[in-house]
Amino acid sequence: MTVEEVCALDAADPLRAFRERFFIPEGLIYLDGNSLGVLPRATAERQRKVVELEWGVSLIRSWNDHGWIDAPQRIGAKIARLIGARPHEVIVADSVTVNLFKLITAAARLAPDRHALLSEAGNFHTDLHVASGAVEAVPGMRLEVKPRHQVEEGIGPDTNLLLLTHVHYKTGERFEMGRITALAKAAGARTIWDLSHSAGAVPLRLNEDGAELAVGCGYKYLNGGPGAPAFLYVAEHLQEQLAPMLRGWMGHAAPFDFTDDYLPAPGIARFLAGTPPMLSMSALESGIDAFEGAEMDALWEKSARLFDLFARLVEQRCGGHGLECVSPPEAERRGSHISYRHEHAFEICQALIAAGVIGDFRSPDVVRFGITPLYLGYEDIWQAVDRLAQTLESGSWRDPRFSVRGKVT
Amino acid sequence: MTVEEVCALDAADPLRAFRERFFIPEGLIYLDGNSLGVLPRATAERQRKVVELEWGVSLIRSWNDHGWIDAPQRIGAKIARLIGARPHEVIVADSVTVNLFKLITAAARLAPDRHALLSEAGNFHTDLHVASGAVEAVPGMRLEVKPRHQVEEGIGPDTNLLLLTHVHYKTGERFEMGRITALAKAAGARTIWDLSHSAGAVPLRLNEDGAELAVGCGYKYLNGGPGAPAFLYVAEHLQEQLAPMLRGWMGHAAPFDFTDDYLPAPGIARFLAGTPPMLSMSALESGIDAFEGAEMDALWEKSARLFDLFARLVEQRCGGHGLECVSPPEAERRGSHISYRHEHAFEICQALIAAGVIGDFRSPDVVRFGITPLYLGYEDIWQAVDRLAQTLESGSWRDPRFSVRGKVT
Repeated sequence: MTVEEVCALDAADPLRAFRERFFIPEGLIYLDGNSLGVLPRATAERQRKVVELEWGVSLIRSWNDHGWIDAPQRIGAKIARLIGARPHEVIVADSVTVNLFKLITAAARLAPDRHALLSEAGNFHTDLHVASGAVEAVPGMRLEVKPRHQVEEGIGPDTNLLLLTHVHYKTGERFEMGRITALAKAAGARTIWDLSHSAGAVPLRLNEDGAELAVGCGYKYLNGGPGAPAFLYVAEHLQEQLAPMLRGWMGHAAPFDFTDDYLPAPGIARFLAGTPPMLSMSALESGIDAFEGAEMDALWEKSARLFDLFARLVEQRCGGHGLECVSPPEAERRGSHISYRHEHAFEICQALIAAGVIGDFRSPDVVRFGITPLYLGYEDIWQAVDRLAQTLESGSWRDPRFSVRGKVT
Repeated sequence: MTVEEVCALDAADPLRAFRERFFIPEGLIYLDGNSLGVLPRATAERQRKVVELEWGVSLIRSWNDHGWIDAPQRIGAKIARLIGARPHEVIVADSVTVNLFKLITAAARLAPDRHALLSEAGNFHTDLHVASGAVEAVPGMRLEVKPRHQVEEGIGPDTNLLLLTHVHYKTGERFEMGRITALAKAAGARTIWDLSHSAGAVPLRLNEDGAELAVGCGYKYLNGGPGAPAFLYVAEHLQEQLAPMLRGWMGHAAPFDFTDDYLPAPGIARFLAGTPPMLSMSALESGIDAFEGAEMDALWEKSARLFDLFARLVEQRCGGHGLECVSPPEAERRGSHISYRHEHAFEICQALIAAGVIGDFRSPDVVRFGITPLYLGYEDIWQAVDRLAQTLESGSWRDPRFSVRGKVT
């Protein structure tokens, strides 16, 4: 496949215009949208306004006058559209970690006779870390961690909660949300889904799939900016049953009555805790607004094509260099990134960055390329693999400077 | 006292130059710095750079290249100087609410035979709400809430933790940190101090006062912007003893090793949980940098003078209108705001806002004026009381539009 052929695919891409909504540095192929999405152009302008006018001029009045106080619900409702949920089932708050703590501790107490929180070995580690702490908060609870292929059979009569990441952060493997949620439910367990590597790229139908509880990340495919606040989802029928253990004034039924007694807000708002970081909240809203007019199914179709192109080009051009694709070939079994195992994944990743292709190293031996259908094109994929092939063929990655590790790898 | 006389005080104020570091809207007297500090001029410029260059151009590389990953510790160390702590004893993370949850659940478990978390009735309500949830996470724990004058005698053999707000959000009353911390300690209890209405205005000497645990707010006197991340303090000798129940990857000893097992980071970093909201973090750092060159004792001396001027002018000019000062007259017993009780506090507050003086209504009957010594001057106080006197004398607050309540009051 020639570069001309892939450029023709870009020209025919019905989603091509969305790329113009983003600032992509000249010459850079950014395949790291699943670690930090690029800057939407509208965000830069919007942040100036939020800082210089809403904060600078309107000051405290902006909580009412510029809708700051409603932001968690308003942005949540916009995310709901992207994940197949109803507007009042999603709220933006805190981080994925903190939201997981809220959901685990609240949901586990609904079934006090069941004591296991089951998760996957090799799950994104913050999920396991927060789970290991959250079980300490609920009498008798314990964390069980099983290899991926034993998770389903691990659901038993003592399983209280199943905590799974929908798309695996490293391999991109995807769980079948509907089937597994139903399987767990049939065994009397509830499932919490982590959508961090799904929301904004992979089709999600939380309501249709019977999902009851979920969290997700704002700074990856949602383009909300570094460390953007996260979201959480609670199905309508469960909201009033859950009593948050981690609770605060923003989740109170009447936060400005300043009463000593805690009375949870109706619905999803009870999962708010402290005051939200408005500058970061506002950037998240701009990021999600960049999806306006895009249908998730069309985005997913494009993601799958970009993935297939990547995989095919690597096969054609990088054979014999020891790259082993660890992401599923079938679109319905994977997310929106493609990962390769290689003994020198770290050095290859660094050499690629120096060559203007940003992917992610994931310890100990994986290089990962995020495919963001909203702003990436076919030529990007072609150029990325071209530079990867050159890096491997030339052995440029052996330069000692590419083995120097930063704090964040 | 004439306006000329107060202007002379401004001219002689050695801290006057700090005002130039802030953007204060023309004609506005902003006495709400203890709800949301004003915008530092440097922040506007810095935020553009963070959004447009660090995020927009450097993208994911900024975690290393622009020091994002060290921000919680770096900003924490800057706050430490303002509160009398050592640099490695303070870290920036999450919200006050979430940080309280972390400290309560971790510290309570150090003394499993003691079951009471004692706090003050009428404490800032999020402190009571989060405490009421956190005690559910620790077997046998309960929340005891006593009137302020009974708190000291309420410390008993079953008291595990004492949770107090150093300066009361409504009245401005200040607890004696050193004496009470020692009193609790002698009874075998640990104290958690909430410094939200202290940090950046009131002198704090956490180390000297033997404080072991504290949290505080970034968006009030620290000028960190709306919903700025909060901070937490743990005295060096306690850090390694505490095992956070709410834990996540950013508090792991090796977050980028992606290991399933949780191993807390050495020292204060273990109290990080998820990824920090960098845009809001960065604004907080700029806000704290605006203190550079200011000594806390000098700031406090000025705060006390501004307070005294306010109180004296109100006595002289607003007598007979039913305002009752609820803040202590003695500087060492109070914080940096002055509050008045009035049957129509809400309407008076709204009328004052319309007259260009922003204070805070605090339910059910208090109007509160925050005195931010870093950027307020003597003339500001004079003008504020002048407009207050006019509002009361004219009865302009009786206009029905001033009784309309927003979501945030």
